[in-house]
Amino acid sequence: MLRMVDLIQKKRDGQALTKRETTWMIDHYTQGEIPDYQMAAWAMAVYFQGMTMAETADLTMAMVASGQQIDLSSISGIKVDKHSTGGVGDKVTIILAPLVASFGVPVAKMSGRGLGHTGGTLDKLESIQGFQVEQTQQNFVDQVKDIGISVIGQSDELVKADKLLYALRDVTATVDIIPLIASSIMSKKIAAGSDAILLDVTVGSGAFMKNLEDARVLAQTMVDLGNAVGRQTVAVITDMRQPLGTTIGNRLEIAESLAILEGAGSPQLRQFIAELAQMLLQLGGVSKSLDEILAHLSNGAALEKFKQLVVAQGGDVTELLTTPEHQTAFSKVVLSQQSGYLTAFDALTAGHLAMRAGAGRATKSDVLDLDAGLRLFKKIGDQVVKGEPLFEIVYNHADFDADQAAAQMLAAVSISEEKIKLKEIVEIIK
Amino acid sequence: MLRMVDLIQKKRDGQALTKRETTWMIDHYTQGEIPDYQMAAWAMAVYFQGMTMAETADLTMAMVASGQQIDLSSISGIKVDKHSTGGVGDKVTIILAPLVASFGVPVAKMSGRGLGHTGGTLDKLESIQGFQVEQTQQNFVDQVKDIGISVIGQSDELVKADKLLYALRDVTATVDIIPLIASSIMSKKIAAGSDAILLDVTVGSGAFMKNLEDARVLAQTMVDLGNAVGRQTVAVITDMRQPLGTTIGNRLEIAESLAILEGAGSPQLRQFIAELAQMLLQLGGVSKSLDEILAHLSNGAALEKFKQLVVAQGGDVTELLTTPEHQTAFSKVVLSQQSGYLTAFDALTAGHLAMRAGAGRATKSDVLDLDAGLRLFKKIGDQVVKGEPLFEIVYNHADFDADQAAAQMLAAVSISEEKIKLKEIVEIIK
Repeated sequence: MLRMVDLIQKKRDGQALTKRETTWMIDHYTQGEIPDYQMAAWAMAVYFQGMTMAETADLTMAMVASGQQIDLSSISGIKVDKHSTGGVGDKVTIILAPLVASFGVPVAKMSGRGLGHTGGTLDKLESIQGFQVEQTQQNFVDQVKDIGISVIGQSDELVKADKLLYALRDVTATVDIIPLIASSIMSKKIAAGSDAILLDVTVGSGAFMKNLEDARVLAQTMVDLGNAVGRQTVAVITDMRQPLGTTIGNRLEIAESLAILEGAGSPQLRQFIAELAQMLLQLGGVSKSLDEILAHLSNGAALEKFKQLVVAQGGDVTELLTTPEHQTAFSKVVLSQQSGYLTAFDALTAGHLAMRAGAGRATKSDVLDLDAGLRLFKKIGDQVVKGEPLFEIVYNHADFDADQAAAQMLAAVSISEEKIKLKEIVEIIK
Repeated sequence: MLRMVDLIQKKRDGQALTKRETTWMIDHYTQGEIPDYQMAAWAMAVYFQGMTMAETADLTMAMVASGQQIDLSSISGIKVDKHSTGGVGDKVTIILAPLVASFGVPVAKMSGRGLGHTGGTLDKLESIQGFQVEQTQQNFVDQVKDIGISVIGQSDELVKADKLLYALRDVTATVDIIPLIASSIMSKKIAAGSDAILLDVTVGSGAFMKNLEDARVLAQTMVDLGNAVGRQTVAVITDMRQPLGTTIGNRLEIAESLAILEGAGSPQLRQFIAELAQMLLQLGGVSKSLDEILAHLSNGAALEKFKQLVVAQGGDVTELLTTPEHQTAFSKVVLSQQSGYLTAFDALTAGHLAMRAGAGRATKSDVLDLDAGLRLFKKIGDQVVKGEPLFEIVYNHADFDADQAAAQMLAAVSISEEKIKLKEIVEIIK
């Protein structure tokens, strides 16, 4: 008979648990038969001793089996999914999903909410009046069959072990452990039922991974893990030293997404999305050139798919197209105090600023101000002239101290004589 | 405001907690305000990162403060205490305490029960008919004032944090961590109120510390700890490769103790006890030669003190002196199958054998057979002739498989042509 204390000791002493041991552990933890204090000791031992790839794969599949698994087999074609490890101003899914679906590759996507300095796709979609992210599994599948796309909230029944384990890791200083991060992310992707997965592993101040080294290890672990369990997986490492695109905030990012879907917006963001779309289409068995993909942004094909998505999930598409951005009660435009080139616009500081302005949650129970946020007029590499607008804070709460927030943001902005160039995609890991 | 998750992370990252942090942690854990899962993660981090001496001392004193502290100040003189980290056949306290008390040094001793392969002084004393180990603190102190000696069970109110933490460590693979072992032992000794402490750190198969290296570190940690908090502390490292003395089992060990107190019994054990007594008397401010000490074993002075102890705590001294050993229903004498010198008589195997014969507890709720146990006719270094008795198992339960137990014990006995000599005291650490 297995005893959890022996498994903790085995891990503590640097040995790998067998598949039987790992499965037993996760099953019994999910059923409440292994207490949190034993899982916490195990997690801390994993922090110091790591896990082998086989062990990580066993853990992941045991976690998948701990909850509901979405069956997408009735949808024909290769179902693709995309996941980001979290960023500031990250509206990629909102543009990428309809763009890919516009090529006939089915996108059945479950997304999450934002917490802390990172935003969540669900919150952004909910800034569209009437948009329903809560759907039954049947509706979810039917909608993908019908229009080729659906984006909904992740079911609470998915990967029950991860919910328990993540909450525990959060309060026991065992969050930043790469095999546990990898199995947490991948178990949810696998349970969500897609055949192929594109992972966006962000790196930099605004990301969970602060350095390239760690991002590479996490990306490679997840790619190996996905492929080991029969899901074709590719990862891109993307730069999150500055926010993505030119807006942070739920409705602001919907408006920016709409601009890209209309063939406008930032050329860098458009190019970045097109490159991701090319990879995701490739995973879906469809080979397209970047020009063909960019054409779907300029000819309205992707926009049309987005409108279908909004309508299908109850959103007011007329209101959205008529008034993409909503005026806020207050706004503060901040000007540059010097001339030169922008060399830093710290993503973490920007994410916290937007959160405090109302765009994000410090704790899960916080209520969002969907229209609040931050607009960036300059990005790293751009030339700046003293007195030009750098950024604008928009908000509705009179008690928000915009002056202090602006000063903090300015302190995290650097301008120098040297022009540097950031590439969104740092590396591709297969 | 302090948060436990930050303290776990600090320790995980190799930093020492401050006195304020350690005290806060133990206070809040004792009050139930820090959950077991956070303490388990901290303990596992300590396994990998260790603790500084200052940190260990802070932890120890915070643990002392978590429960009742015994006030022995009304007893005049330097109160001495002795503690063993656990052995097989360890009846040292039963002889040493009255021997030291016979020189006028007050012994106010709290002892524990046995678990697993190691015996406990309380169980041994309870094999004397009527002996009461449960006493009020007032009676305890009064008895020491009256006759200079008392041996009672440790109060449940002592070092509450240690009870919680030890139970948690036991199921989270965090028992074998030297600073935590040291603080667990020393917090109980300090709370028990003595001025000076003699530590017997056993090493070898029958002991908790399996190698000399670890025993040295544990002994030095406890000595430094005791001295750092104002209790004069000396440690001896003693050999526990073979059982101590010639008996294992509660009543058997009482009978062996009585023999030593009457100036008879094994000369090696008598010498060992005299050396420990010399150190303990020294700690109590009394300087005596080994001859003077041995004289108290041969002239009845120590025996008289022991009889006073038994009478004071309700024991039937007449029955004890008339029938030191109790006949058991069954007995199995095992003969040597070869000639030579005894080079091994594994203490762990012997301890487990005695436990299964009824002398010890596998779990806390097991009921003891106080008369069962093991008699050793040969010890390491003794010459053995083929066909001579090696050991005898005595027991009362018909379902105990003595043949199998004897075979297992024989497999852990070695006889060779080489004569080796063990010294009980391996090292003295001050």
